[in-house]
Amino acid sequence: MATISQPGAAVREPTLDDVRAAAKRLRGVVTRTPLLYPATPGFPLAGQVILKAENLQVTGSFKPRGAYNKLASLPPEERARGVVAFSSGNHAQGVAYAARLLGVPATIIMPRGAVASKLEATRALGAEVVQVGATSQERLEYGMALARETGRPVVPAYDDPMIMAGQGTTGLEILEDRPDVEAVIVCLGGGGLLAGIALAIKSVRPDVRVIGVEPAGAADGQASLRAGRIVTLDHPDTVADGLRATHLGDLPFALISRLVDDIVTVTEEEIRAAVLALHRGAKLVVEPSGAVAVAALMHGKTGVEGRRVVATLSGGNIDQALLAEWLQA
Amino acid sequence: MATISQPGAAVREPTLDDVRAAAKRLRGVVTRTPLLYPATPGFPLAGQVILKAENLQVTGSFKPRGAYNKLASLPPEERARGVVAFSSGNHAQGVAYAARLLGVPATIIMPRGAVASKLEATRALGAEVVQVGATSQERLEYGMALARETGRPVVPAYDDPMIMAGQGTTGLEILEDRPDVEAVIVCLGGGGLLAGIALAIKSVRPDVRVIGVEPAGAADGQASLRAGRIVTLDHPDTVADGLRATHLGDLPFALISRLVDDIVTVTEEEIRAAVLALHRGAKLVVEPSGAVAVAALMHGKTGVEGRRVVATLSGGNIDQALLAEWLQA
Repeated sequence: MATISQPGAAVREPTLDDVRAAAKRLRGVVTRTPLLYPATPGFPLAGQVILKAENLQVTGSFKPRGAYNKLASLPPEERARGVVAFSSGNHAQGVAYAARLLGVPATIIMPRGAVASKLEATRALGAEVVQVGATSQERLEYGMALARETGRPVVPAYDDPMIMAGQGTTGLEILEDRPDVEAVIVCLGGGGLLAGIALAIKSVRPDVRVIGVEPAGAADGQASLRAGRIVTLDHPDTVADGLRATHLGDLPFALISRLVDDIVTVTEEEIRAAVLALHRGAKLVVEPSGAVAVAALMHGKTGVEGRRVVATLSGGNIDQALLAEWLQA
Repeated sequence: MATISQPGAAVREPTLDDVRAAAKRLRGVVTRTPLLYPATPGFPLAGQVILKAENLQVTGSFKPRGAYNKLASLPPEERARGVVAFSSGNHAQGVAYAARLLGVPATIIMPRGAVASKLEATRALGAEVVQVGATSQERLEYGMALARETGRPVVPAYDDPMIMAGQGTTGLEILEDRPDVEAVIVCLGGGGLLAGIALAIKSVRPDVRVIGVEPAGAADGQASLRAGRIVTLDHPDTVADGLRATHLGDLPFALISRLVDDIVTVTEEEIRAAVLALHRGAKLVVEPSGAVAVAALMHGKTGVEGRRVVATLSGGNIDQALLAEWLQA
């Protein structure tokens, strides 16, 4: 995909320098999210975890880091035609936000059945939204066709060095704030955030464990890591709508397979329990996709319990009706 | 009330030195809560307000600051008999938390109709909970009688120099983190937090505006400020269960009437809108009492719109069923 938006440019892995350059570009553009230390006795991980609160990020997820870094690094004459992106929701808002800041028209292809609040938020940011299909593969094909027809570059959700470098700034911030961190737990969908964070952390501190977490119903990442090649799931099935990518991107897989220590899975019930624990105990609104790292820690899945652990909360854009239902159960 | 727990000690206003001493006592005991900068385009005050996130405080509200400061400054032989407190909920958890840390038995008198999650959380902290009456006055009388019979000191919710000094540490932290602050907006119930913050801020930076906010249905504070004496409301009527005190404490009123620039009110609908805006836009769980400062800013009530404003989010212990209902409406 990177070749679509960068014709003639070689597809290459991002480097630590790319992440550092992204951090400079993003200054004043995205929120420098805080690390939080939930200590309420009723929170199951009180005193045992540090949270990187990307749910407090502008647009409610980490996605604008990569999107802005990508758009800002496109040649101005190329992005002036407008951009195309496909997304289940959070990447949509990230691209819409970045496009608005840069004065670029954005067309976002979102799945039928996307969370209503994510659709609305994307439109509110001035993007044109087209709803297509249910899987990331369908959206990808539609988006690439549209890009070919209109000559607009695609802003990939994860399989792009500039996207990964942008997401990796999350890892740089963790290291800056807690140089003594021992492990970082990251949600895994298409792999952009996990690959970016692994790149940032392992380049500087190879001793820090980096662990990916995905829903058991969308565990293509774990299967890929074990198989040593990208494994595709036909029908990812999870409430974590941001983690329904059918397979890892090529570039994220290359980095993840080399840098990530482990990929573990959590059940739907564990995800729900984590969302509720974060809501009731830590007073944070976190979406299912954003709660899988905490879910893994709550249920002893990571093997780093007891160490100085940062869990990323990747987003807070939960469907309000679903949350209301969970709160009442 | 201060005389009950400190027989022989003169009732006196707290000083800045008391607040500084409290800050030392509280180090490592309570959370150094962050200032947050919500920037999501969908949040009505995006980029216009800084939030002091006491909803992320241990026990989910600012109350353990004062409670721990009070208990820790009681003579050990006095607090060893145990302590009594009366509260609609958040002070209960604050006292229970402090008592547990200091190994002191705590009996908490809570109102009938208290938020279920607050009752449970108080019991979970090891305190004995007795449910009595519906107003703070009834609980006060019952608690004082119990204290007389058992010889246990009462831990007042606000009318005590050590309680106010503890709450005032919130103000010191705001000044430390943002020395350039121009206005601080604080919720007002019994007056402990507002008086403490006003003391801390105005002692150091008399030019910073300090403004109290209370529900229109419990506006005894505004009436008191205007009348120049403590006005009592017979039947406070508001969803903000933490702000139903029938009147200000004597000591808080003395400080508030001298130091606070203004007291403004918000309607029930404005409170609800603020809770939802914070939930959806800022991804924070805030209870109605904790959202009144943001409600006042959202609805242009404070007269400091456009300045560098910190709004305190005093707590996050919202009734989950109520929140679910609001999210669905």
